[in-house]
Amino acid sequence: MQAKYNELLTILGKVDDIGRAAGLLGWDQQTYMPPGGVASRASQMATLESMAHELFTAGRVGELLDEVAPWAEAQGYDSLPASAIRVTRREYERYRKLPNKLVAAKAEAVGLAFDAWQKAKHASDFSIFQPRLERLVELSVEEAEALGYQEERYDALVDRFEPGMRTKRLVEIFDRLEKELVPLVRAAGRSAGDDALRGLSFPAQAQQDFARELLIAMGFSFERGRMDVAEHPFTSGFSPSDVRITNHPYEHAMLSNVFSTIHEGGHALYEQGVPTAFDRMPVSGSASMGMHESQSRLWENIIGRSLLFWRHFYPKLQAHFPVQLGTVPLEAFYKTVNRVKPSLIRVEADELTYNLHIILRFNLERELLNGTVRVADLPAIWNERMRAGLGVTPAHDAEGVLQDVHWSDGIFGYFPTYSLGNIYSGQIYNRMREDLPDLEGAVGRGELLGVKAWLNEHVHVHGGKYEPEDLIKKITGEGLTVEPYLEYLKGKYGK
Amino acid sequence: MQAKYNELLTILGKVDDIGRAAGLLGWDQQTYMPPGGVASRASQMATLESMAHELFTAGRVGELLDEVAPWAEAQGYDSLPASAIRVTRREYERYRKLPNKLVAAKAEAVGLAFDAWQKAKHASDFSIFQPRLERLVELSVEEAEALGYQEERYDALVDRFEPGMRTKRLVEIFDRLEKELVPLVRAAGRSAGDDALRGLSFPAQAQQDFARELLIAMGFSFERGRMDVAEHPFTSGFSPSDVRITNHPYEHAMLSNVFSTIHEGGHALYEQGVPTAFDRMPVSGSASMGMHESQSRLWENIIGRSLLFWRHFYPKLQAHFPVQLGTVPLEAFYKTVNRVKPSLIRVEADELTYNLHIILRFNLERELLNGTVRVADLPAIWNERMRAGLGVTPAHDAEGVLQDVHWSDGIFGYFPTYSLGNIYSGQIYNRMREDLPDLEGAVGRGELLGVKAWLNEHVHVHGGKYEPEDLIKKITGEGLTVEPYLEYLKGKYGK
Repeated sequence: MQAKYNELLTILGKVDDIGRAAGLLGWDQQTYMPPGGVASRASQMATLESMAHELFTAGRVGELLDEVAPWAEAQGYDSLPASAIRVTRREYERYRKLPNKLVAAKAEAVGLAFDAWQKAKHASDFSIFQPRLERLVELSVEEAEALGYQEERYDALVDRFEPGMRTKRLVEIFDRLEKELVPLVRAAGRSAGDDALRGLSFPAQAQQDFARELLIAMGFSFERGRMDVAEHPFTSGFSPSDVRITNHPYEHAMLSNVFSTIHEGGHALYEQGVPTAFDRMPVSGSASMGMHESQSRLWENIIGRSLLFWRHFYPKLQAHFPVQLGTVPLEAFYKTVNRVKPSLIRVEADELTYNLHIILRFNLERELLNGTVRVADLPAIWNERMRAGLGVTPAHDAEGVLQDVHWSDGIFGYFPTYSLGNIYSGQIYNRMREDLPDLEGAVGRGELLGVKAWLNEHVHVHGGKYEPEDLIKKITGEGLTVEPYLEYLKGKYGK
Repeated sequence: MQAKYNELLTILGKVDDIGRAAGLLGWDQQTYMPPGGVASRASQMATLESMAHELFTAGRVGELLDEVAPWAEAQGYDSLPASAIRVTRREYERYRKLPNKLVAAKAEAVGLAFDAWQKAKHASDFSIFQPRLERLVELSVEEAEALGYQEERYDALVDRFEPGMRTKRLVEIFDRLEKELVPLVRAAGRSAGDDALRGLSFPAQAQQDFARELLIAMGFSFERGRMDVAEHPFTSGFSPSDVRITNHPYEHAMLSNVFSTIHEGGHALYEQGVPTAFDRMPVSGSASMGMHESQSRLWENIIGRSLLFWRHFYPKLQAHFPVQLGTVPLEAFYKTVNRVKPSLIRVEADELTYNLHIILRFNLERELLNGTVRVADLPAIWNERMRAGLGVTPAHDAEGVLQDVHWSDGIFGYFPTYSLGNIYSGQIYNRMREDLPDLEGAVGRGELLGVKAWLNEHVHVHGGKYEPEDLIKKITGEGLTVEPYLEYLKGKYGK
């Protein structure tokens, strides 16, 4: 049986190799690829995606899964073989439903859409992106139909990023969140002070030097990773030993780069923390995108926006920018970092309004998929809802509907995982605090490796072995619940 | 028949996509990959290489070639379909002979060997590289045996890089070259002046600024290409619209970076100059590595080391390094650039001794393949032959047997193409001079785009349609002949 298991692992290893190679092509496209590379890159990505899909779904994987399952399961639910079989079967059944042509068509459409989105954003001209987005919505509808669903088309797409999650539950969670957030935003907004960094300019190189220091303090390994510049920050792992983050040091948006870096650093620690024994198997990923996001958000917000954190790191930041920050006291800086003020750009939003940005996207995605909103109408609807919900209106599409990369990547159903990540992060942090009595003292001394070690041991070590609901129970003893996150927000902003 | 031809092109396109993706993985390994990525990268490369090989040799390509050939040939030998069929068949027949396991094993061995070579070179410790090199020699012997040959094992490997070339002919050519070069080297060595740049230090950033200017003057498109830093300079194309060169600006070896840049720029112009109509077909490459090398050498040496070239560019170089070069006159600089002095490092060698470095490697490769030299004995034999042939002895292996990346890439049979490139470049330059009466005037004014245009029109436009012997005839009216190159050398150094 070991031989059959090994045969299965050989196939899965190749599928993983091809997927990781495609990942590198994507990373390169967003970091170093010259403009001329677009068309050939799209076709290369399409070929790799379709070969991985073909190899994975060719049938032999299914036979081997059936044959090996009893042997693997006998080793216990938590064992690597049983988990590998369980997760592989879930993915196998999902991918078998997708026609190879659709997979290749989507990969190619994504390659072309990314370039169009970049151009559209630079020109702030939605019409450049519109036909590409229409194509991606069309393909995503096909995808959802091929995957199947019980209640709503959107379920099929969400499940890819958050196994086990349903739209209905998201609606409940987001309704609760929104109800609690709106008064909090209003109250916190009233007491929001000035932006202490307004008008200051921060040279890119010093921003990146500080970013590097932060990553090292968090325990990110540069032996097993990199930091590069991209239009939109993201993290890609080509194995647990080659995990790369990107950020973007705009001179007038230093804070955005700081928090992007911490955010991506949180993702990267997850990827670097998955045991190498899981290499080249479907369990080598994460439990879900929401769980991935819990890591980035815990670092970015709960730790990275805390006063304790900046007690230690603010003098270091000042040392990089003595002229700009020399006369800005810690308290003013801290208030700026946590200033609640409805604004246009999701990635620059404060912790509270951030979730409202997500809810807006969640609703639009459902409507796009259900056909109740047309792509052509997106800019107008976006602007109207921003005005109605947040009280701000984009002056142009680059700061409105074109701001995010995600739709150009064809990943509808992904946005909700950002807020799920926030919610998980509240639960996880609560538990971590119980386990680490000196947690706050350590953060105040800039000693973050204990946080990393705890996350390694309780979250990362499981890789993608469990569905997120199981994993959060394993970590905290409780399923997904929004209370700890709300308590955290009320504790911080409700005073 | 058009439908069958299209089916063939679809398969070839996928094979090309996978090959180009593997190329990007290789580029990344040499430019940006963190150290931790080595093992997974090796396995990813192996998977891609073996999938491309499997897809190409699965049998359907052979059927389609047979079916489409008469239709394609009816369009004339020079037509794209006829050429595509001809070149594809040649490659198909070659790759069919290689077992898929061997292809994958070699790709994986190469991935691991590159890292070992880098470490060995840094530590100047051959023993780190030795087992990896032994494995690659072993696999290359297997490869040669699988490919087959008439006279000598080495033939099978050379043919991959220089279709139609045989070891026997190389021996004749190299004997002739060596016989002419040795007295030239001796004479030129006696009149070699001092190194006018000795002891000077050149900041890396200014070196790269000048390198960029040179590439732009040559007509390299940064819209369709990049320049990055790697241990060993190389050029990779992921399509004619995404061609990347690498160089390495060591502060104490500015000239080396200048000439590497021009050299790689010559390669890159070839890749950027192949018609996009050839995209994703085997004809989208070059005629041969020797022909590729003719482009880099023509630019690097015949043009880039000429007095006319530096009349225009030396003041520009001085402007980047006013302190270092302000008091060095053009004549002294020119003499330094063309200083003949047997030395240890091939890539820093003068034009004359360069070929002797190649001949040394050519002989060693044949002996390794024939089993008359063992890998373990390479360092000692290398040092002895350097002493005997060039009169210099490496102090350690980093400046001896470990200096070149090629063997870590498993490409035995490649080195001879450097000297073939020199020889072709003499023939091509002669012909270009006839066509462009003001060639030297233009070079002296720094107007290099005419050179690029001529090469585009007479060399690059053919991509990989022809075997090198056919192509050099098409360009110059004559087959491969060493005379023009020897005349050029004698004209320059024999006075």
